[in-house]
Amino acid sequence: MEQTQLNDPWIIRVSPDMASPSLDDNTADVDRLVKAVKKELGTGAIAVPYAMAKRMTRILRGVDYRVSATLFEDRGVWHLVDVSGAAETDGPFGLGMDLGSSTLVLRLLDLKTGNRLDEISTHNPQIDVGPDILTRIHHAAGEGGLEELQRMLIERINQIIGRMIKRRGIPEKAVAGMSVAGNTTMTHLFMGLDPYWLCREPYIPVVNAPDLMSAADLGLALHPEAPVFIFPNVGSYFGGDLIAGILASGMCREKTTAILVDVGTNAEVVIGNRDWLMACAGAAGPALEGGVAGVGMMAGPGVIDRVVIDPETLRFEIGTIDDLPPVGICGSGLIDLVAQLFLSGMIDLRGKYVPSRCGDRLEKTGGVTHLVLVPARDSGTRRPLTLSQPDIDALMRSKAAMYTILTTIAGAVNIPLNDLERFYVAGTFGSYINPRSAITIGMIPDLPLETYVPFGNSSLEGACRALLSRGDRREISGIRDRITYMELNVNQEFMNLFSAARFIPHTDRSLFPSVKEWRG
Amino acid sequence: MEQTQLNDPWIIRVSPDMASPSLDDNTADVDRLVKAVKKELGTGAIAVPYAMAKRMTRILRGVDYRVSATLFEDRGVWHLVDVSGAAETDGPFGLGMDLGSSTLVLRLLDLKTGNRLDEISTHNPQIDVGPDILTRIHHAAGEGGLEELQRMLIERINQIIGRMIKRRGIPEKAVAGMSVAGNTTMTHLFMGLDPYWLCREPYIPVVNAPDLMSAADLGLALHPEAPVFIFPNVGSYFGGDLIAGILASGMCREKTTAILVDVGTNAEVVIGNRDWLMACAGAAGPALEGGVAGVGMMAGPGVIDRVVIDPETLRFEIGTIDDLPPVGICGSGLIDLVAQLFLSGMIDLRGKYVPSRCGDRLEKTGGVTHLVLVPARDSGTRRPLTLSQPDIDALMRSKAAMYTILTTIAGAVNIPLNDLERFYVAGTFGSYINPRSAITIGMIPDLPLETYVPFGNSSLEGACRALLSRGDRREISGIRDRITYMELNVNQEFMNLFSAARFIPHTDRSLFPSVKEWRG
Repeated sequence: MEQTQLNDPWIIRVSPDMASPSLDDNTADVDRLVKAVKKELGTGAIAVPYAMAKRMTRILRGVDYRVSATLFEDRGVWHLVDVSGAAETDGPFGLGMDLGSSTLVLRLLDLKTGNRLDEISTHNPQIDVGPDILTRIHHAAGEGGLEELQRMLIERINQIIGRMIKRRGIPEKAVAGMSVAGNTTMTHLFMGLDPYWLCREPYIPVVNAPDLMSAADLGLALHPEAPVFIFPNVGSYFGGDLIAGILASGMCREKTTAILVDVGTNAEVVIGNRDWLMACAGAAGPALEGGVAGVGMMAGPGVIDRVVIDPETLRFEIGTIDDLPPVGICGSGLIDLVAQLFLSGMIDLRGKYVPSRCGDRLEKTGGVTHLVLVPARDSGTRRPLTLSQPDIDALMRSKAAMYTILTTIAGAVNIPLNDLERFYVAGTFGSYINPRSAITIGMIPDLPLETYVPFGNSSLEGACRALLSRGDRREISGIRDRITYMELNVNQEFMNLFSAARFIPHTDRSLFPSVKEWRG
Repeated sequence: MEQTQLNDPWIIRVSPDMASPSLDDNTADVDRLVKAVKKELGTGAIAVPYAMAKRMTRILRGVDYRVSATLFEDRGVWHLVDVSGAAETDGPFGLGMDLGSSTLVLRLLDLKTGNRLDEISTHNPQIDVGPDILTRIHHAAGEGGLEELQRMLIERINQIIGRMIKRRGIPEKAVAGMSVAGNTTMTHLFMGLDPYWLCREPYIPVVNAPDLMSAADLGLALHPEAPVFIFPNVGSYFGGDLIAGILASGMCREKTTAILVDVGTNAEVVIGNRDWLMACAGAAGPALEGGVAGVGMMAGPGVIDRVVIDPETLRFEIGTIDDLPPVGICGSGLIDLVAQLFLSGMIDLRGKYVPSRCGDRLEKTGGVTHLVLVPARDSGTRRPLTLSQPDIDALMRSKAAMYTILTTIAGAVNIPLNDLERFYVAGTFGSYINPRSAITIGMIPDLPLETYVPFGNSSLEGACRALLSRGDRREISGIRDRITYMELNVNQEFMNLFSAARFIPHTDRSLFPSVKEWRG
């Protein structure tokens, strides 16, 4: 991201040469600025919002016609955001945001250089209303519910913006743009659009591709005329966050076909290239995001994210985030663990504990078999961390669902999964997952490891790209228009594939040649 | 104006075919409408304002997706104004306005057909603050003064709009656009832009060519998203009213060179054709608008607008508006009168009363000679209506100024005045003036009478054209860009011309071959 100057920005600041008024040149103040900016940009139409026109004379005369102007481009017209003295040369600044159901991540950017200045992640305050999207949609239908949900978001975002610009000593009005990627429901709540029909047949959003809005429209604490770009969605179940991911991955520009998987609450999958894109989504995530396993949790300090089991000694080597005493396990740790349990013969190909190999690590509580992962004495919670058979069963369903979805979408476009040359794994999940372990349990195809490209928050990454580049922003509608959304029909074929995938790594062992079973 | 359908409108209403949502077509509500409208228009970009997006789902579902949409075009993008049920097929409607310093004239139009539905003229309420522009500019500089002046205007305009739409049974939100032509100061006050620098060297407006505004921006009682088009100005002294006149005259499209004169507080003159336009303005008006003559007044009931004097009997034949007993005289009546006085030998070529011809019609009051035009017994005011020598002197100066300005501007482009093929006379003055009389006194050149084209309120006419036609609206910036504004320098040459024009019809009799002097 470090560079001296962006070459294709759509939010810019210019300091045009402008003569002071005289009897020989009585051009009006607004038109004088417009003319100077046109000359500087070497281009066409400039729009001046009413509020700016009203203040123009005072501003221009206040700095003796030596000004900087901030503008943004939309549909070929450059819109004036701000005019100030030429001496104030910093900025413009902007914000990229990943608008997640659980987490908001904001990144402050220098829009001239593209440099990242700050980044803050925070819980989505709507969690207080309901952790899941459906509860929130229901809440929005109540008296004042929608306004409340929108206000919660905007207030929290404004706090974060306030904190970031204070830390960097940036005035609010120097923040001249924002770009937001989120799922369809979150995007609706952010805009204050009624999400009622998102979860009701035939699942119609209020809007797919919103026009640029202004910060003032949304009550955001940036320059009131700052444009807010909101990623479009393809439908209720395929949101702007994934389109941002496609943009960030670059798969939409490549000749070879790639696949992109974003595991959040849903597993969202896109396959395609610069000519076509096909997408689908399905419930495959919960076990992977910490929603299912009894000890499961989101990644955080003390959370187990790496597990190695020595197949000879059956010794567990456990890694935690920040090397703190373990308090739970996250999705990537769980996948590692299950892969290691399988490779050491402690679970069988159905994912069931093998008592002869697990020995005294197995316990039975309330009729349910648990494996003690960390005894109470070593645990950060002073209680043993265990993994139950149902936890593993849930993961087996998740991984089977994931593999089935991948098989189905690849099958739909007639490309064998194992022929893919690039496999993007997005999401917080993607940035930590060990592809080797995920292959071992048969969750993702048995491709060379270098095929896998993890990239952290693809939604945030895409949001920032759209904010920084005119071409990237323009590309988004092209991406959206190219996407064919495939409804996942849970038909007999899907169920057959699913059943075949509920083994480690798979019923058809030829699909996973690299996975070596433990042989006792 | 009567026609079945305009062929080039920029504010339109369409009733696109739109399928209800289904699982096979889950396009969002906003995008569904946009898609349908695009198909209907066979064209590109559609912008949906935030406020409309917010209400879209409710509207569409309320009428089961059978809708009419109102849109306006700006810089190639069609902007949504309103969406309602397809059954409401009336409209859209719009308003043209002549924003005069003394008078506001609003015309209600059917934007589909161009038909004129209503027209109301009212005093500019700012007259209460000051009859002249300078007083208002001064007032605007005081605490809250600008806001007060703007509010006065908007409130009065809203009253008029309210009256018109009530009379026609049109809902406020069906009024989907407005077009306003006024001088530069009035335009600034209408927009709430500070006019302070308009009357101070180097006379810089806040804006020459304002972007479209919304009715909501200005607090106008039409649809809040309705576009308001405000004519651009060339500078402080050359306003949008005159540009509207140029547009309305059509001189900007003609190959032959024409001249346009608009007499209001100033005389504004434009000469040109489709390739170039030159303009100037000068003080020549007051005597003609009723501001100077002791009996002078604006046209109205009982006001003398025609005078014929029989050179043999010296009998006065006096015509008044609505044939009521005379109460005063307006500009056109005054010109008629002075022409007739000259033709009957009652004034000489210097405009001085000839006592031997005037006889007992002459009276002396306070050392000033008056001609009794209407004795008290015939007067609507029960007092005699008289015309003093200073009244005539003032008219002589005005007519001399007018002719000098015409000579000067024609000279600047090297076209003899008497070669002009078309002479547009705009303004309320223009619609009543008898060109024969104006030629007789040497106010306008001695052209064949058919050369003169009076057209009433050219400013209103231009405003309405701009509202009804995309091409006309687009042409305006072309007109503005083509205008060269000529500063009238009151130099020796000007003064020589002026002196020569202070005779009836002129010192150089060869310029007015058609005028026959009275020979007693």
